[in-house]
Amino acid sequence: MPNKGMLVVLSGPSGSGKDTVLSEIFCKAPELKKSVSMTTRKPREGEIDGVDYIFVDESVFTDAVSDGKMLEYARYGGNYYGTPKERVDSWLSEGLTVILKIDVQGGENIRRLYPDAVSIFITPPSMSVLEKRLRRRGSEAEEEVRKRLAIALDELKSISDYDYMVINDSLEDAVDDVITIIKAEQLKVTRRKNYLSEVIENV
Amino acid sequence: MPNKGMLVVLSGPSGSGKDTVLSEIFCKAPELKKSVSMTTRKPREGEIDGVDYIFVDESVFTDAVSDGKMLEYARYGGNYYGTPKERVDSWLSEGLTVILKIDVQGGENIRRLYPDAVSIFITPPSMSVLEKRLRRRGSEAEEEVRKRLAIALDELKSISDYDYMVINDSLEDAVDDVITIIKAEQLKVTRRKNYLSEVIENV
Repeated sequence: MPNKGMLVVLSGPSGSGKDTVLSEIFCKAPELKKSVSMTTRKPREGEIDGVDYIFVDESVFTDAVSDGKMLEYARYGGNYYGTPKERVDSWLSEGLTVILKIDVQGGENIRRLYPDAVSIFITPPSMSVLEKRLRRRGSEAEEEVRKRLAIALDELKSISDYDYMVINDSLEDAVDDVITIIKAEQLKVTRRKNYLSEVIENV
Repeated sequence: MPNKGMLVVLSGPSGSGKDTVLSEIFCKAPELKKSVSMTTRKPREGEIDGVDYIFVDESVFTDAVSDGKMLEYARYGGNYYGTPKERVDSWLSEGLTVILKIDVQGGENIRRLYPDAVSIFITPPSMSVLEKRLRRRGSEAEEEVRKRLAIALDELKSISDYDYMVINDSLEDAVDDVITIIKAEQLKVTRRKNYLSEVIENV
């Protein structure tokens, strides 16, 4: 029988670099499962259905919500985004580790539904670095940068609801930190339900 | 101001290989501090006072106990063994990570005194491997081997009181596991009391 699966909730403000950290993690540790969000927004160039998002019509999305098939969902800029429950639960029942990238509000819901979930907050090394990163994108108007900084500051106040904090100063270190956390959590006695039988066998 | 120091309690039955694991850990991660036990037993050949043990007379030991200077102590085979409190507390107040090798009974005391302590149980991969290891030492009489196996089995029942379980099958993996656990614990939000100021600075 496998050990219990493990759900890892990963959050962080815009500009924390959590997407880059995540892509690196799935390269380095392909045994980790990535929960793919469902959305009603149209695919952008290069985005692959089922990999980047599950792209669906609004009626499919709202049906999934009313059928209780979504772990959480939210509406941004006229589009729905959410986490389908089925695949996550099926991976967990196989004893696998599933990573869920989610915003701070969604994170709260998930922790309520999965009290054993491990939660990691990725932060930029400082607000001034975050500001530089947001400006470097170039595409953002001054007002947008200000707005994102205010949101980031607000989200940072939720760090205390998370189990772990990873400061994304060097990408490589941040990726190693997240993988280290996952490995350590897998060594927790509470996650190794067969721990005694592993050792004792037929005494 | 440094983050809070961290106390790591490491236990495991005789034959689990915890001493070898520990020596490797201090080689690989010299920033970790080793709590040195005090004992009234005579030094064995090659043992260095202050490194392997603090060797003292019985009167010094019992005075330390009655002065409240010991975190825990026990008597085995006519000799006292115990953990002096002062150095551990001073390292912790400097924000350092201190590793304490201790038996299962001592571990309970320490967890009561330091509820934030991280506890790791090192086990042999199986009882049959443990038996082989104990016999391989050669020096142990059959009766002694039986006695140690019975004690080990009893100690294994305490695993559920520990936070983490490391199976010492390959020495290298076991050492990596312990270092991984320590690194991950250092990333816990509760251990990074300055977490917000680290990031937010002068907003």
